[in-house]
Amino acid sequence: MTGLIETEKAALVFDGAFCPSFHRAVELIGRRWTGAIVRAMLCGVGRFGELTAAIPDLSDRMLSERLKELEAEGIVARTVLPTTPVRIEYQLTPKGLALAPILEAISMWAGKYV
Amino acid sequence: MTGLIETEKAALVFDGAFCPSFHRAVELIGRRWTGAIVRAMLCGVGRFGELTAAIPDLSDRMLSERLKELEAEGIVARTVLPTTPVRIEYQLTPKGLALAPILEAISMWAGKYV
Repeated sequence: MTGLIETEKAALVFDGAFCPSFHRAVELIGRRWTGAIVRAMLCGVGRFGELTAAIPDLSDRMLSERLKELEAEGIVARTVLPTTPVRIEYQLTPKGLALAPILEAISMWAGKYV
Repeated sequence: MTGLIETEKAALVFDGAFCPSFHRAVELIGRRWTGAIVRAMLCGVGRFGELTAAIPDLSDRMLSERLKELEAEGIVARTVLPTTPVRIEYQLTPKGLALAPILEAISMWAGKYV
């Protein structure tokens, strides 16, 4: 019975059973390694080598591909610092930082159920 | 600067830059079609034919595969109703209903940024 009440509440929150922008967002966030990369960046990890060190089994090639994708989506900004040698920093944009509540909700669910 | 403050706050919320159960959860939720299926079920859609009707481009084969996976994960329960012909109902378990806050957070982010 609780199930039914919960389902009715949810129907009020979501604007329709299907929503293209929701669909696009959930599959973007769930793409292989993307969640782990954004989480690490939310924790302040901002350099390429630090990211591969922080995330087990993440290859350089895959990280590079995901960072380019996240840059193209406006979630990550890449800054080249004019030091010698040049230093490259990755940072979350406001759009990327706004993913924090989603990742927190996933963390809580994972802590309870995974 | 806001970026840095936000990052510091996030580091307090997340228990480490990488967490295996978080990683598993985010990739489970983001698997192709899974988000859309769980959202439709949160909106009360509970039969196979209704799910394919609600979600554009979702094939029978793919829905069947995802439902089996969600059942194996304990997110969806399958009930066979003893009618003639038998009727099969899919419902979210408590673990599945607990995904609602995540999907709501994604909906809000998608509404603003996608």
